[in-house]
Amino acid sequence: MALKVVALAGGVGGAKLSYGLAQTLPSENLTVIVNTGDDFDHLGLRVCPDLDTVVYTLAGVANRQTGWGRDRETWSFLETTGALGGPTWFRLGDRDVALHVHRTRRLREGVSLSEVTHEVSRAMGIRCTVLPMTDDDVRTVVVTDRGEMPFQEYFVRRACEPAVRGFRFAGIEDSRPAPGVLDALLAADLVVLCPSNPWVSIDPILALPGVRSAAGSRTVVAVSPLVGGKAVKGPAAKMAAELSVEPTPQAIAAHYSGLLHGIVYDQADPDAGDALQRDGLRSLRTRTLMRTDRDRRRLAGEVVDFGTTVAQREAA
Amino acid sequence: MALKVVALAGGVGGAKLSYGLAQTLPSENLTVIVNTGDDFDHLGLRVCPDLDTVVYTLAGVANRQTGWGRDRETWSFLETTGALGGPTWFRLGDRDVALHVHRTRRLREGVSLSEVTHEVSRAMGIRCTVLPMTDDDVRTVVVTDRGEMPFQEYFVRRACEPAVRGFRFAGIEDSRPAPGVLDALLAADLVVLCPSNPWVSIDPILALPGVRSAAGSRTVVAVSPLVGGKAVKGPAAKMAAELSVEPTPQAIAAHYSGLLHGIVYDQADPDAGDALQRDGLRSLRTRTLMRTDRDRRRLAGEVVDFGTTVAQREAA
Repeated sequence: MALKVVALAGGVGGAKLSYGLAQTLPSENLTVIVNTGDDFDHLGLRVCPDLDTVVYTLAGVANRQTGWGRDRETWSFLETTGALGGPTWFRLGDRDVALHVHRTRRLREGVSLSEVTHEVSRAMGIRCTVLPMTDDDVRTVVVTDRGEMPFQEYFVRRACEPAVRGFRFAGIEDSRPAPGVLDALLAADLVVLCPSNPWVSIDPILALPGVRSAAGSRTVVAVSPLVGGKAVKGPAAKMAAELSVEPTPQAIAAHYSGLLHGIVYDQADPDAGDALQRDGLRSLRTRTLMRTDRDRRRLAGEVVDFGTTVAQREAA
Repeated sequence: MALKVVALAGGVGGAKLSYGLAQTLPSENLTVIVNTGDDFDHLGLRVCPDLDTVVYTLAGVANRQTGWGRDRETWSFLETTGALGGPTWFRLGDRDVALHVHRTRRLREGVSLSEVTHEVSRAMGIRCTVLPMTDDDVRTVVVTDRGEMPFQEYFVRRACEPAVRGFRFAGIEDSRPAPGVLDALLAADLVVLCPSNPWVSIDPILALPGVRSAAGSRTVVAVSPLVGGKAVKGPAAKMAAELSVEPTPQAIAAHYSGLLHGIVYDQADPDAGDALQRDGLRSLRTRTLMRTDRDRRRLAGEVVDFGTTVAQREAA
């Protein structure tokens, strides 16, 4: 019988591994819980970058060049918005904007983000369960040497240029995990922390009331987002340096300390098996780069096999 | 010195004549007051069909084939909306939707429709003044043999199929003309009722509190929207038949009875000069079809010359 797996995911890396897991597991055995701390309102529309990257990737319509947005995209909307004097720093394609308009309308009609996500997933042919981490407004604030700023301001508008000092998740104390999040975690045989940014993709999910303890009651494995000490995409390595964290599998494992039973890290990193074992962690050193669909499936298969072994040893 | 002209306009016909007037008059001498009774909320966005047709036409970016929407348009938004299970009966192009998103955002920020219209007009290079008839919500309701329905439901979704019994302008009692509307009318040397649908394009404007009496204090000429008893575009002739109104210049003049000093009608209609004169109206029989920009300019020039003569005779 196949494992019940819950994946916690941010953007590109989380989306790719989720795609691999969706190809590996029966759809009813996979739940992907997605960071919404990056969500923001732009042009009066609710934009959910990580959720959309996961949904587009699972539906097979993600843009493989950019790492965000959709394939076969057109740009008339953005061009016209600019001509009208509107902001163009956040690049919304015509197909992408249709989802934002649809979601914004449904939210205004009183439908929750998790319900809209369910509708959109089904409409796009996704069979596993995709859940936003919460239906409430939780917003990642980046504390930098230039002051605090909303995540998209830091990430897109300032291109991650300010040096990071830390993070806050505004609204998290009063938030609740979305319906299904805690249930899925408590029923999981394996919780996978995807190769997403630990600070701004995975931490917001774990910081939601109840999530860390629910995840902590299960077998948890992480896939390190670093490859040879560098981030595949995004500012994880830059953030690590600014936060004085070594860009190593051990440091990623230490970040999730108390939660983790095992970690998967890249073959480009030095063998850290002994050091990790001294910290009580099982590990798998393999190729974690996912350039092709085949890479995604292979890594997902290895993660599930590794997780199964870890779970069995935990149970023993 | 050039005449100060105020044009009351609906969609295509009104937009074309306004374009001609804008080419004919100094920009500070032309104010176009546009019907907003057809406006509606679609996909959570405020859509203003007549206002947009006028603005796109004046800016030279209207789609000349369809009579609505923009040129160089793309359709990714609509295609994706359909794939998400959203409604596609109202055809929003990608460039068009950028204006609706922009306007909706500004309205939500508390900016009035007339202010947004001013901003958009300037951004699109329009130099004359374009005013929505009101900043309030006035909505044309079509009374038909199938019951009452909002205008766009009748016009687009049902393709004008139900037989018309009459019209209501919901909200008109509590509405006010947009800032500038009454001032422009009271300062006008000539008020032109454009060749737009009398019942659903011009009547809503005239029905606004104060507009009819302000217009009635000036010289008013109409351009008949019918050519040889037929509408150039839209349901005017079908409506006339259903309302038992003859599709003649005399009947159009009678519709505006008490307001009008002169009427311009098409050479394809039988000469009605004597009959109109018996009703105390001056008239001009000419080619009113506007296929080219040159047609628009020529007709606008003739309307202004005719209006000047009418005004002089009124003053005499």
